[in-house]
Amino acid sequence: MIVDIINKKRLGKELSYRELDYFFNGYLNGNIKDYQMSSLLMAICINGMTDEEIFALTKIFIDSGDILEFDDIPGIKVDKHSTGGIGDKTTLIIGPIVAACGIPVIKMSGRGLGYTGGTIDKLESIPGFKIKLTENQIRKQVREIGIALTGQTANLAPMDKVIYALRDVTGTVSSIPLIASSIMSKKIASGADKILIDIKVGRGALLSNREDAKKLSELMIKIGEVYHREVRTIISDMNTPLGYKVGNSLEVIEAVEVLRRKSVDSNLVDVCVELATEMVSMGKNISKKEALDLVNSVLDDGSAYKKFVELVNAQGGDLTKVSVSKKVKRIKSTSNGVIKKIDALELGKLSVALGAGRKSKEDKIDYTVGIKLHKHIGDEVKKGEVLATLYINDKSDCSEINNIFDIK
Amino acid sequence: MIVDIINKKRLGKELSYRELDYFFNGYLNGNIKDYQMSSLLMAICINGMTDEEIFALTKIFIDSGDILEFDDIPGIKVDKHSTGGIGDKTTLIIGPIVAACGIPVIKMSGRGLGYTGGTIDKLESIPGFKIKLTENQIRKQVREIGIALTGQTANLAPMDKVIYALRDVTGTVSSIPLIASSIMSKKIASGADKILIDIKVGRGALLSNREDAKKLSELMIKIGEVYHREVRTIISDMNTPLGYKVGNSLEVIEAVEVLRRKSVDSNLVDVCVELATEMVSMGKNISKKEALDLVNSVLDDGSAYKKFVELVNAQGGDLTKVSVSKKVKRIKSTSNGVIKKIDALELGKLSVALGAGRKSKEDKIDYTVGIKLHKHIGDEVKKGEVLATLYINDKSDCSEINNIFDIK
Repeated sequence: MIVDIINKKRLGKELSYRELDYFFNGYLNGNIKDYQMSSLLMAICINGMTDEEIFALTKIFIDSGDILEFDDIPGIKVDKHSTGGIGDKTTLIIGPIVAACGIPVIKMSGRGLGYTGGTIDKLESIPGFKIKLTENQIRKQVREIGIALTGQTANLAPMDKVIYALRDVTGTVSSIPLIASSIMSKKIASGADKILIDIKVGRGALLSNREDAKKLSELMIKIGEVYHREVRTIISDMNTPLGYKVGNSLEVIEAVEVLRRKSVDSNLVDVCVELATEMVSMGKNISKKEALDLVNSVLDDGSAYKKFVELVNAQGGDLTKVSVSKKVKRIKSTSNGVIKKIDALELGKLSVALGAGRKSKEDKIDYTVGIKLHKHIGDEVKKGEVLATLYINDKSDCSEINNIFDIK
Repeated sequence: MIVDIINKKRLGKELSYRELDYFFNGYLNGNIKDYQMSSLLMAICINGMTDEEIFALTKIFIDSGDILEFDDIPGIKVDKHSTGGIGDKTTLIIGPIVAACGIPVIKMSGRGLGYTGGTIDKLESIPGFKIKLTENQIRKQVREIGIALTGQTANLAPMDKVIYALRDVTGTVSSIPLIASSIMSKKIASGADKILIDIKVGRGALLSNREDAKKLSELMIKIGEVYHREVRTIISDMNTPLGYKVGNSLEVIEAVEVLRRKSVDSNLVDVCVELATEMVSMGKNISKKEALDLVNSVLDDGSAYKKFVELVNAQGGDLTKVSVSKKVKRIKSTSNGVIKKIDALELGKLSVALGAGRKSKEDKIDYTVGIKLHKHIGDEVKKGEVLATLYINDKSDCSEINNIFDIK
C-alpha cells in the first residue's frame, strides 16, 4: 500500500484524498518512515499535484492541528504572509500601519531558519518583548490597542511543520503545490478572514522566477476560494535585499526609521506601502487609491509609529534599549564605479556567518550583529569608500563578504 | 552540499562522478541519511541518468566491494543473470548444459525475496547441498567438474545491496539506470569474461513493457563495453510462469525433468535452450546454429543431466531425498473452456502465501510447498477438472487462488 502510493505518484498519477490522508497521517503516526515520505515528496516535486490533490493536502494539514477563530473581535481580520526574504522586516512596519488605520491585526510569526530571518527573532531583539501571549491575552490586547504580534499560540498545522523540516534536508522545498499547501494551511488555521501573500522572487527567495510566483499566486487564490477566504498576492523582487539593514536589532531600528518617515526612498518603503495598502483595502473594503491615502496619512501624522510604540509597550518591550554590537568592521570599495547588484542571497549567508541567523534549529543567535549597507543599487562609489558596516562579535565569520557588491 | 546534489538531480541536471561518489559513499558511511538517499533515488527514477552518470554509479558500486577474477581457470567464463521471474529455475538447467558443453560455469546466486524465488533457496531444497564454498573450493571444483553453483562468496558490490533494500521500500525499484548499474556492477565484480542477461518482461517481472527492456538491454551492453566485457541480452516473457512448477523442491524436480528430456514442450524448455545456446555461442566463440546443435546433443545424450548429478554430488547434495509435502489441495476448474491466461504475478503471490517464499528477509521458507500446474495456456479444460495441485503445510494460506487462471 505504502509503496503503491509512491509508485503511483512516481508515474505522475493523481492520488486520492484517502491515499494522501493515509500516507501523511501514517507519517505523523510513525507507520510511514522518513525515507518513504521523502521519496513521495520528491515525486511530488517533480511530477506536481493536481488542484484536487492540493486541496486535499491543505485540508490534511489544517486538520492535523487547532483551528483558531476571532469572530468575537470586531472588524475584518486580514493576515499577511511573506514567503521570506533577506532583510524582510515588513511585518514590523505594516502591522502598526494597518492597525493605525483601524483594522485589527493579529499576526503570529515564526523564527528564522537559514538565510532569511524570522519576525519573532526580530521582535525578541527588543529587550523585554514577550512573544508568548495566551489566546486570551491576544484577544484582550487586540480589543484594547488593535494589534498583537506573537509567536504561534496554538498548534497550527503541526503536520506541515514536520513535513517542512523533512523537505528542508531532502531537496524538496521548491515545489509550488507543497509551498501553497504549507502556507495556506497555516493561514486558514490561524483564523484570518482575508489573506495577503507577499511572494518574493529572486536569488534570496524560495522562488527564483516570476512564472513560478504566478503559479503559486493562482494556486493560493484557488485554495482560498475553497475555504471562502479572499486571497490577494503581491509578487516582489528579492534579488536585492529589502532596505539597508540586515540583522535583528538593526532591522528593528530600520523599521522605526520607516515608521517615523526618516527613511523614505528605499525599496523597503515601497514594498511596505504597497502591502499595507492592499491590507487596508481588503480590511476596509475600499479602493486601493483610498487605502493608499489612508496609509500615507497614518505614516505622515505619526500615528503608525505611535501604534508601534504602543504595541511594544503592551508586550513589555523597551525600544530605548535596542542595541547593536560595538565591534564593527567596515567594508570598503576596491574600485570606482556604480553598484550594479547587491546579492541578497550572499548577504543572507553573510548575516548567518556573522551570527544573526541559525544554521540549525539549535543555534543561538546574537541580536546585536548584522550588516548596514551605506550604499544601494545605482549609487556611485569611489575606491576606498565604505560600502557596508558589519556589526560583529568574537565568533563572527567575516570571510564571506565577496560577491555581495557588483560594482562596474 | 547534500541538498545541492539532490536539487541538481531534481532539476534534471547531470551529476559528476565526484558528486555521485560523495553522495553514495556518504550514505554508506552514515553521513547521508536514508531519507536523503531515497529522495535522490526518486529524482533519478523520474529524471533518469545520462550514460556518464550510469557508468560512474556502476564504478562506485563495483569499488564498494571485492572484485573477483578467475583467470587461472582455462576457458571463457560466461555468467548469466536473470532479472527474475515466477518459476524461473533456468540456472539449475542451463548451468549443467553449458558445463557439459565444456565451458566453465561459476555461478553465484542470491536468495529470493518477494514473489520471485532465488536459485540458492532452490539448491538448498536438495538435502545436504552446500551453497557456501570458499573461493579455493570453487576453483578446485570448477577445474575438476567444470561447474560450481554457490551463494556469494565475496563481498560483491555491497553498496548495491543496501541501496536495493532502500529502493524496495521507497517505490524506487523501477528505474532502468538503477537496475542496469545494480546488475552490471555485481556481474563485473564477480569476474565473468562475458555476460548474458535474461531480461524478463511482464506481470511477474521487474519491467512491464518491451521498450523498457530494450532500453535496459542497450544500457547494459554499453556498460559492458566500458569494462571490455561482451554482453548479450535476451528479452523473455514473464506474463506467464516458466514451466509447470513453482516452489523450491518442485522446481528442482522440474529442472531434472527438463535435463532428462522428460519435459520437452514447455516455455521453460524453450527459454533454457535459448539461453544455453547464447552462452555456448559466447563461451566457444561459435555461431548460434552450432551452439544450438551442441546444446541439443548434451541434452539428448544425457551428459547435461549427468553434469547436474555430478554437481549435486560434488556439493554434498542427495537428489534422491528431494521431497514435496504430502499435504495437498487440488484446484478444480469451475467452468468449461480454454485457459487464456495464467497470471505469473498472482501465482508468485500464492507461492509466498503457501510458504515457498519470503515476505521479509527474516522469514523461513518451506522447501516442500508449492504449486504444480496440470494445465497451461491454450489447454482445454472441463468443469471439475484439476487445474493445479497445491503442496501445502499447516500454515499455508490458500485463499489467494483466484485470478490465477483465466478460462473462457
